[in-house]
Amino acid sequence: MHRINDRDAKSPKFSYAESTLFLMITMSFCIACGHPTEQKIPLGDHKTRLVCGNCGNIHYENPKVICGALALWDDKVLLCRRAIEPRYGLWTLPAGYMELFETMEQGAARETREEAEAEIDLEQLYCMYNIPRIGQIYVLFKAQLKQGLFGAGEESLECRLFAEDEIPWNELAFPSVEHTLKHYFADRQKGEFPIHLETLGTRLDQTG
Amino acid sequence: MHRINDRDAKSPKFSYAESTLFLMITMSFCIACGHPTEQKIPLGDHKTRLVCGNCGNIHYENPKVICGALALWDDKVLLCRRAIEPRYGLWTLPAGYMELFETMEQGAARETREEAEAEIDLEQLYCMYNIPRIGQIYVLFKAQLKQGLFGAGEESLECRLFAEDEIPWNELAFPSVEHTLKHYFADRQKGEFPIHLETLGTRLDQTG
Repeated sequence: MHRINDRDAKSPKFSYAESTLFLMITMSFCIACGHPTEQKIPLGDHKTRLVCGNCGNIHYENPKVICGALALWDDKVLLCRRAIEPRYGLWTLPAGYMELFETMEQGAARETREEAEAEIDLEQLYCMYNIPRIGQIYVLFKAQLKQGLFGAGEESLECRLFAEDEIPWNELAFPSVEHTLKHYFADRQKGEFPIHLETLGTRLDQTG
Repeated sequence: MHRINDRDAKSPKFSYAESTLFLMITMSFCIACGHPTEQKIPLGDHKTRLVCGNCGNIHYENPKVICGALALWDDKVLLCRRAIEPRYGLWTLPAGYMELFETMEQGAARETREEAEAEIDLEQLYCMYNIPRIGQIYVLFKAQLKQGLFGAGEESLECRLFAEDEIPWNELAFPSVEHTLKHYFADRQKGEFPIHLETLGTRLDQTG
């Protein structure tokens, strides 16, 4: 539930990585002792970090992992219509931030449960995306919906199964969703589902 | 250079995820305003987070991505002997924390440059590991060393190319290194290099 959207909803103009940059050029404080931090290249490092002037604690910021599923049933794809900003009302794959102490597979299953009230059988790792501008990577699994059952979690207005000719291409929430659907329909034609690794998000107005 | 080791070297008994847990049960402070934080489940969330009692800022902690390379030359594998704790003196693949604003591929190339002073041509995504106990995922690429050239970065005592029968199996730094080498030699026999996705690290004394 700590999701792409939670943070974006609060500051839609700033991505996670941008907010980090912002923190680094404004005042920030040490999480361990509350003392103001300073920008510094720690000994043995090459990059500027936020370092505590009192206790020396280094505040590292690293990319976040987003896990999700392309959940299938009867040749149809499960999409969720977003009940939250950003991209309210647009269609997305169930996906969200990976949590500490879980695997990527568990993250994908949890997000599908939370957003679409659906249980899935994971089939394979399928699409991975770098989105360096906003400090994210996507890890999406191909999966089968168990018994074709689903609902709509609290972050979804509705969830629905779409055949290829029903996909709302102009109402998709993120480029990662469009890329994954295009890969899937093309791969299905060929009967082969290789893992796709791509870098997305060069336009300034997109969030992945 | 913000690496697995930097943090572990300071508190070898606590992993990143464990330190996070530790922070959550001791005093910690808001990075945005310096006020003490409290443990709370934010509205619309299901997990306890550190939330600022003053400005409401939520401190999310998520798994870290470690990128690296299985760099090959002339049927030999490049390994680095660690000049830092943990696992000082043991052999590892060049790998380290992915940084903000880079891709996984760039992270793998940067770490190989830093630890082995080597340039590589990435061939494919090869091994991925979940290490949920310590809040890490590994993303390792199969690569070719450019012109067979390498040195030893400041975190390496030495770097060396090993043929299969020369691998120091009892002196490898991490289970992820052993798994990747075993996959590679087995796959090379078959002439096929599928992507391996596994979950490692159930023993309490290992760090991946």
